[in-house]
Amino acid sequence: MDNTFTAPMVQTVDLLLEQKKYVTIRDVFLTMQAADIAALFDALDDSKLPLLFRLLPKELAAETFVEMDEETQELLIHGFSDTELKEVVDELYVDDMVDIVEEMPANVVKRILRSADSETRKAINEILKYPDDSAGSIMTTEYVTLRPNMTVEDAIKRIRRTGLDKETIYTSYVISDNRKLVGLLSMKTLLLSDDDDVVEDIMETNVISVKTLDDQEEVANCFKKYDFLAMPVVDNEYRLVGIVTVDDAIDVMEDEVTEDMEMMAAITPTDKPYLKTGVFETWYKRIPWLLLLMISATFTGMIITGFEEALASQVILTAFIPMLMDTGGNSGSQASVTVIRGISLDEIQFKDIFRVIWKEARVAFLCGATLALANFVKLMVFDRVSMEIAMVVCMTLVITVLCAKIIGCVLPMLAKKIGFDPAVMASPFITTAVDAISLMVYFNIASVLLGL
Amino acid sequence: MDNTFTAPMVQTVDLLLEQKKYVTIRDVFLTMQAADIAALFDALDDSKLPLLFRLLPKELAAETFVEMDEETQELLIHGFSDTELKEVVDELYVDDMVDIVEEMPANVVKRILRSADSETRKAINEILKYPDDSAGSIMTTEYVTLRPNMTVEDAIKRIRRTGLDKETIYTSYVISDNRKLVGLLSMKTLLLSDDDDVVEDIMETNVISVKTLDDQEEVANCFKKYDFLAMPVVDNEYRLVGIVTVDDAIDVMEDEVTEDMEMMAAITPTDKPYLKTGVFETWYKRIPWLLLLMISATFTGMIITGFEEALASQVILTAFIPMLMDTGGNSGSQASVTVIRGISLDEIQFKDIFRVIWKEARVAFLCGATLALANFVKLMVFDRVSMEIAMVVCMTLVITVLCAKIIGCVLPMLAKKIGFDPAVMASPFITTAVDAISLMVYFNIASVLLGL
Repeated sequence: MDNTFTAPMVQTVDLLLEQKKYVTIRDVFLTMQAADIAALFDALDDSKLPLLFRLLPKELAAETFVEMDEETQELLIHGFSDTELKEVVDELYVDDMVDIVEEMPANVVKRILRSADSETRKAINEILKYPDDSAGSIMTTEYVTLRPNMTVEDAIKRIRRTGLDKETIYTSYVISDNRKLVGLLSMKTLLLSDDDDVVEDIMETNVISVKTLDDQEEVANCFKKYDFLAMPVVDNEYRLVGIVTVDDAIDVMEDEVTEDMEMMAAITPTDKPYLKTGVFETWYKRIPWLLLLMISATFTGMIITGFEEALASQVILTAFIPMLMDTGGNSGSQASVTVIRGISLDEIQFKDIFRVIWKEARVAFLCGATLALANFVKLMVFDRVSMEIAMVVCMTLVITVLCAKIIGCVLPMLAKKIGFDPAVMASPFITTAVDAISLMVYFNIASVLLGL
Repeated sequence: MDNTFTAPMVQTVDLLLEQKKYVTIRDVFLTMQAADIAALFDALDDSKLPLLFRLLPKELAAETFVEMDEETQELLIHGFSDTELKEVVDELYVDDMVDIVEEMPANVVKRILRSADSETRKAINEILKYPDDSAGSIMTTEYVTLRPNMTVEDAIKRIRRTGLDKETIYTSYVISDNRKLVGLLSMKTLLLSDDDDVVEDIMETNVISVKTLDDQEEVANCFKKYDFLAMPVVDNEYRLVGIVTVDDAIDVMEDEVTEDMEMMAAITPTDKPYLKTGVFETWYKRIPWLLLLMISATFTGMIITGFEEALASQVILTAFIPMLMDTGGNSGSQASVTVIRGISLDEIQFKDIFRVIWKEARVAFLCGATLALANFVKLMVFDRVSMEIAMVVCMTLVITVLCAKIIGCVLPMLAKKIGFDPAVMASPFITTAVDAISLMVYFNIASVLLGL
């Protein structure tokens, strides 16, 4: 279960290969899960892969192939004869094949499509035409359909006969003559019903489905909310065109979380694993945001320049700038991250905005007061600054925390409302906005209280 | 699929209730998913709930009950007669019942346990004894077991006879006489085999399982890696004690992501939805980190104080402090969030630490150079500062970004290595560390170049 297992395993396989103990290697592979064999292949020397791959039985070979990273897949395909390629392609599910096709260069795609039978080729092209991140792009067309007037016995027979190549047989979809989705039936219901019950009498008619063009994130959210194993995908005429299974929905959830976290840290999202992303690509994903944020931070600098003279007469004030800026930034990002997560868990809607603001305002007041109190004691006892300076710093703290929390909760909600991803409104942007505000508050309070 | 639907629905149900159209309400409920009825109940006036809940058929009532929030559950239980409570309890799965029992006050728990039959009560107590966040605490004891010598026909018969109360019938577990787990069999394999095949000949013997005390996060990671619908939980003697189903694993994934994001924003994680958490509780989750970070930021202030005289002679230097601090913080959090996510996706291990540092160093150099260049142009053309000042600022930028990215990638990996959650080493702590470093670099370069 741990990737660290691959290191000794690589050594074992290497030695067995040297000793040409192919049967032993095959036996070892047979004790492993496809995902683990794939991880092993990714770690092994490229030149050994074609030979090792041929040791796998057909079905396991296909399952392993799907789990490999794209470089290894491409390498293997290049080494395949047409017959070998066809064998792998025949075992693959349509949605996995689409994933592979999307990552491969054109000449490899051509070979893959040529190896597929015409029906599969049609299904692949069908799925490929849906936009990235849509329900259509993650669905598979290999599902079990039943007719309303079938008996349970017929249905089970049909599933046993056609089920081998279906991505799931645990949910069957009941369709009318014109392929409209009229109900669904779980294998559990089928097995627990009498043989002569009729499908339309026992099927679930209250079916939650998604449209082909719905966002994949919405599909994933349905899986979180309802404990489904699969969800039907329909077109605008409510005709069944595919299904999404829970394992694919889990992958989408993972991708969406990574995307959110990257956006929250001011990085342009990418699908690639960290160690596989090149230095220039990483730079390219990060630099626009750093530049943008650097330019925004200039305004904060301008505020300081505006108060340059005042600062020169009371240089001690400069010493508290980092603490005020950091505390403001941290308070703001606490609020923004909480709200962003609440939005993506569907716990917070736009209509709650005033409840959220009111709550954050009270929390901010409590936090600000606590921080100001702690700081006041520190300033008077340890730093021994004048009472006026201590008052300036503490009052600024309270107001900064209040502004930071309000901005932190409002910006993500507004972003969502106008159609942006709320995750963009996380720490870095909040920090930049709060910096400027906290300094303005600081210098203005200082001007009044210290008569600068 | 959208929570916003509840508003008109609340009105509809309210009106139908006034008109005492109970049959209509029941018909409306029958078209809805349990999770949606629960959301509706949570939004409805408390006094109406007992009556409405009684309109639901038994099984749907139990499913809905599980999806409600704990306040609503407690309210309903208080209104239940003993018979009604027993009816709901009888329909619940053991793991759902454990979740409810964990949230309820002692007197309600007593009533619930009294309503359960002795076997269920034993199962609940069994699960309750496992620590929070362990595999044991999220498992259910309702699974299908088969014996190695059964035929497929026997197995299917057994599942059809006993499957009704099992959390899943799609994976059956094959156990030996002493309850040791010897294999598993999917319903698909069963249905696609011949009736007189024997279980031990067709079962999967290469079973991935977790131990009762394993972290629930590890369980969730297995579901991400292998596309299972359920995973067996075994004790130290490899005896089967429970299973975890994919829907519960998805809940764990969600909780772990929320926990990570909260830690990254310097908030003590909580299970409660945002709008249900009280103001004092929210304050309590946030204030320790704000205090800690405020105290850390004081060191940054001390660095400024140490250079007070130099600053007084060149106040213009103060104007660039926010930009340098923010850019350092942003660069560091980009690296730390990327690495934290990479660790939790199992893409990065500790052994990769030098590859990661080398990569971040090159990215940092590119980012630092780009930012310095942009800044240099701005400083010379727009701000018209002296060449020396521009050099100080730009050199500081390059060094700060380099330090920030290195610290940002190293700290989460070290945290993980010594057993802490890497998510703690996200933006706020990185920012605080980088602030101090960037100011030290700034003032030292300034001292040398400007002869302060």
